Amino acid sequence: MAKDIKPVYFQDGVVKMVDQTLLPGQWKEREYSTYEEVAEAIEKMIIRGAPAIGVAAGYGVAMGAREFAELPPDEFRVKMNEVLERLAITRPTAVNLFWAIDRMKKLLVDNNELPGKEIAELTLAEAEKMRDEDVAINKAIGEHGHVIFEDGMNVLTHCNAGALATAGWGTAVGVIRSAHRKGKRLHVWVDETRPRQQGAKLNSLELAIEGIDFTVICDDMAGHVMQQGLVNVVITGADRVAANGDSANKIGTYSVAVLAKYHGIPFYIAAPLSTVDFSAKDITDIPIEERDESEILGLVSGIELIGGVKVYNPAFDVTPNELIAGIITEKGIARAPFTESLAAMRDSQ
Amino acid sequence: MAKDIKPVYFQDGVVKMVDQTLLPGQWKEREYSTYEEVAEAIEKMIIRGAPAIGVAAGYGVAMGAREFAELPPDEFRVKMNEVLERLAITRPTAVNLFWAIDRMKKLLVDNNELPGKEIAELTLAEAEKMRDEDVAINKAIGEHGHVIFEDGMNVLTHCNAGALATAGWGTAVGVIRSAHRKGKRLHVWVDETRPRQQGAKLNSLELAIEGIDFTVICDDMAGHVMQQGLVNVVITGADRVAANGDSANKIGTYSVAVLAKYHGIPFYIAAPLSTVDFSAKDITDIPIEERDESEILGLVSGIELIGGVKVYNPAFDVTPNELIAGIITEKGIARAPFTESLAAMRDSQ
Repeated sequence: MAKDIKPVYFQDGVVKMVDQTLLPGQWKEREYSTYEEVAEAIEKMIIRGAPAIGVAAGYGVAMGAREFAELPPDEFRVKMNEVLERLAITRPTAVNLFWAIDRMKKLLVDNNELPGKEIAELTLAEAEKMRDEDVAINKAIGEHGHVIFEDGMNVLTHCNAGALATAGWGTAVGVIRSAHRKGKRLHVWVDETRPRQQGAKLNSLELAIEGIDFTVICDDMAGHVMQQGLVNVVITGADRVAANGDSANKIGTYSVAVLAKYHGIPFYIAAPLSTVDFSAKDITDIPIEERDESEILGLVSGIELIGGVKVYNPAFDVTPNELIAGIITEKGIARAPFTESLAAMRDSQ
Repeated sequence: MAKDIKPVYFQDGVVKMVDQTLLPGQWKEREYSTYEEVAEAIEKMIIRGAPAIGVAAGYGVAMGAREFAELPPDEFRVKMNEVLERLAITRPTAVNLFWAIDRMKKLLVDNNELPGKEIAELTLAEAEKMRDEDVAINKAIGEHGHVIFEDGMNVLTHCNAGALATAGWGTAVGVIRSAHRKGKRLHVWVDETRPRQQGAKLNSLELAIEGIDFTVICDDMAGHVMQQGLVNVVITGADRVAANGDSANKIGTYSVAVLAKYHGIPFYIAAPLSTVDFSAKDITDIPIEERDESEILGLVSGIELIGGVKVYNPAFDVTPNELIAGIITEKGIARAPFTESLAAMRDSQ
């Protein structure tokens, strides 16, 4: 039986997160007892992956409510607004973050009259619900998505959109997991995913735990394996999907999508509907987070001796909808034209 | 005045090479006094880049001749055959290696009657000539090639095809160097070039020494910068070019070429005619060297704890001629159809 991975959960009065910056070398759970600590953990990428960030932010709001539960109602409301604003600025691209915060904001408004202690309980229950829902949604994505794989196929994925990127099970890796548990034998090409190596570090760990065959490659090898006919299908997660299907995901996803298109290989996105930002019309409405130069400079031994080296470190890129064969959500596989198919999924019961 | 880079040369009875595995953190020249040491230096990538490997192999033959110069003629010939065979198996893809060895073999055959000591002098003089010729050829490539750049352009390159990859000046970086010295202001996007980071480490060093503006990116960011319109032209070197223009170069070059094609960006190869293997009809005749798994595994901290992780580590890939706008040689820019244009260059005086 494969081990269930729980990247974030609440226990004994604290939020616990697996420190993903230490994986795969060390499996260490860290504990956070304030909303500020949760916000910093998100910023430092202790936890990463859009759905996992959303759930973590939910817990962050709950921790804030617990911290300020004894304050008079007016002060409590002021503090809770600070909590929401603080958590909202941790990562700019993950739409699930804003979705989670909006959901918590609505809960706070709806229960404005209740004492802080009760709101603290309600927000914690809501965060727990968000976690359970996310796992259920991922399993539904897997149920709908596994049909894209046939027994014996070679799959390529970029970055980690697995159990570690969600509340559990995973989106892109979740679809692979679902197919595997249904008995389909797959081989996965794991892109290293520079600069932070989420593929080589986290997908390797998850696929090994699940017992799925895989091979790690450097990002610049993806085209070569496709050229040799060794890739049947590509699947990645998404951090934000625009109303028309344009999808932001980890830097490098766009290159993989272009390479897949050139080789006639279908490219799929797996993401919950909460990842779709219907207020973003298309690619032009998706901001790209740029991360610190040190993330790259620190990876090149001796480069500091050259002096004044410039680096560019975008965290995400955007894949336009014309490169996407389908977007797999908990309600099925959306196909082009995505503006219609995604809206229909949103509006369906 | 920019510093002239000499990656390999003969001095005081030994072959000296800049240890490129230590760059850019440390500039250390190593000394080799036997052909076996030279062969091992090539295998360990103390020196790399097809033209530089060719020149190093030439020096290796000369060192062998010096080692065995006192042997009786028959034994000398046997030993020199061993020398040629040993050096030929150091790197399987670099055609310049075989070209250099063939040239030395011809010299040995032509001077079969001479005593070992004289042959030792002749082979050393020939190796020196190969080095001087290579620099002259690279400068000619730059003279022909700089016209692909206009003032203010953004250039993207993958791996290091610079002075450090040749006897000096460089091929792809040499063309950029020539344009720069003619007063064209260029900005270069430097692909990191996994797994060995020749771009981030060696291009950064060379471009900084030359005073050319550049920015380092991870390999998976190339598509994103192209998508944003920030790349006007792509140029790389080649380790082996088939008669029809299909070009083997550092792994990742093919992906960059496909991305350039998709974005309508011209993709150029810069390589001396000695890199063209007219006996290789096309891509199917170019063997791909696969390097050790440890090169990748060693780059992923903690991955050994997962156990049994498979990696794939091809050193090169092949870019088919339909993705190539031009192949810049010392005789001009070959354009499609390459079978004709490359043969015409070979046959011209």
